[in-house]
Amino acid sequence: MGNEKTGELATIIDRIRNVPDFPKKGVIYKDITPVLNDPESLQLVSKLLVVPFQGLEVNIIAGIESRGFIFGSHIATHLGAGFVPVRKFGKLPTKKITMEYELEYGKGQLEVHEDAILAGDRVVIHDDLLATGGSARAASELVKKLGGVIVGYSFIIELTYLNGRSVLESDIAVHSLIKV
Amino acid sequence: MGNEKTGELATIIDRIRNVPDFPKKGVIYKDITPVLNDPESLQLVSKLLVVPFQGLEVNIIAGIESRGFIFGSHIATHLGAGFVPVRKFGKLPTKKITMEYELEYGKGQLEVHEDAILAGDRVVIHDDLLATGGSARAASELVKKLGGVIVGYSFIIELTYLNGRSVLESDIAVHSLIKV
Repeated sequence: MGNEKTGELATIIDRIRNVPDFPKKGVIYKDITPVLNDPESLQLVSKLLVVPFQGLEVNIIAGIESRGFIFGSHIATHLGAGFVPVRKFGKLPTKKITMEYELEYGKGQLEVHEDAILAGDRVVIHDDLLATGGSARAASELVKKLGGVIVGYSFIIELTYLNGRSVLESDIAVHSLIKV
Repeated sequence: MGNEKTGELATIIDRIRNVPDFPKKGVIYKDITPVLNDPESLQLVSKLLVVPFQGLEVNIIAGIESRGFIFGSHIATHLGAGFVPVRKFGKLPTKKITMEYELEYGKGQLEVHEDAILAGDRVVIHDDLLATGGSARAASELVKKLGGVIVGYSFIIELTYLNGRSVLESDIAVHSLIKV
């Protein structure tokens, strides 16, 4: 871990469960379900996710399906913003735009409704994990295509050794609570 | 709509978008994304979802993937509870239990981590929509299998003509904000 295990975050870091060989051999999955399960940890993560974006006139939180949905309404209501689900291919029911991105093997696709973002909307992209950055960047491109302005990225965990930041826009703030 | 279109809920009901023939011909999909998108509507839904469960010593909100995740951390933090994701087959990384349920065509499966619920936990099952009730009941069975007590069900929309309540336990409270 790249964090000092002191203060508020120590209990959160201790609750992240490392699951070897999931979803495939050789990968160590960072399981946040024990963090979510604990009321105090959930309160703390919820609180800390909001802090970096206060006072920045954010009006949309765009959460990436599925785990990026969990803190969606929380962050949004605390900032006085709306929530936009950035969904996997085929899940949104009406007019939408699609962005392809690289996965370790093959490609993924993310979609957003065309009317979900208006020109000038000030948007935070949220997901639980920053790994290679492919899905976060795809979400950002969708928002920008509709005229939205990306105010920042919000993650709970950042896997720094995958250097996902390098695929995100260099002039946009990336806030991750925990760096691994 | 079975609601009087007066008071606080009227603006929410007006924002629910009916999308014909999604996900398949003949179905009218209830799209809540315009509700989520609007900060005031999101605040109101968030607030109203919490109300029925205050003072009931709920300590776990179990949200059903994916749209049942969106209000998960919000409801949980407001009740001082933890959040448990009830996920689709194959998404949870470690020891879990599985429950099958009927879909219109074929079967679905939901899963929960074995250590997500402790005996005596007081649990609310949350999803955006109560349709046939199959997935909500499966989530309830998973919780009960682990010794949890179901305090109630929480939905944003209930499609009353599908009578999903009839497959849920008759002695457990079902709270839906909007009945269609």
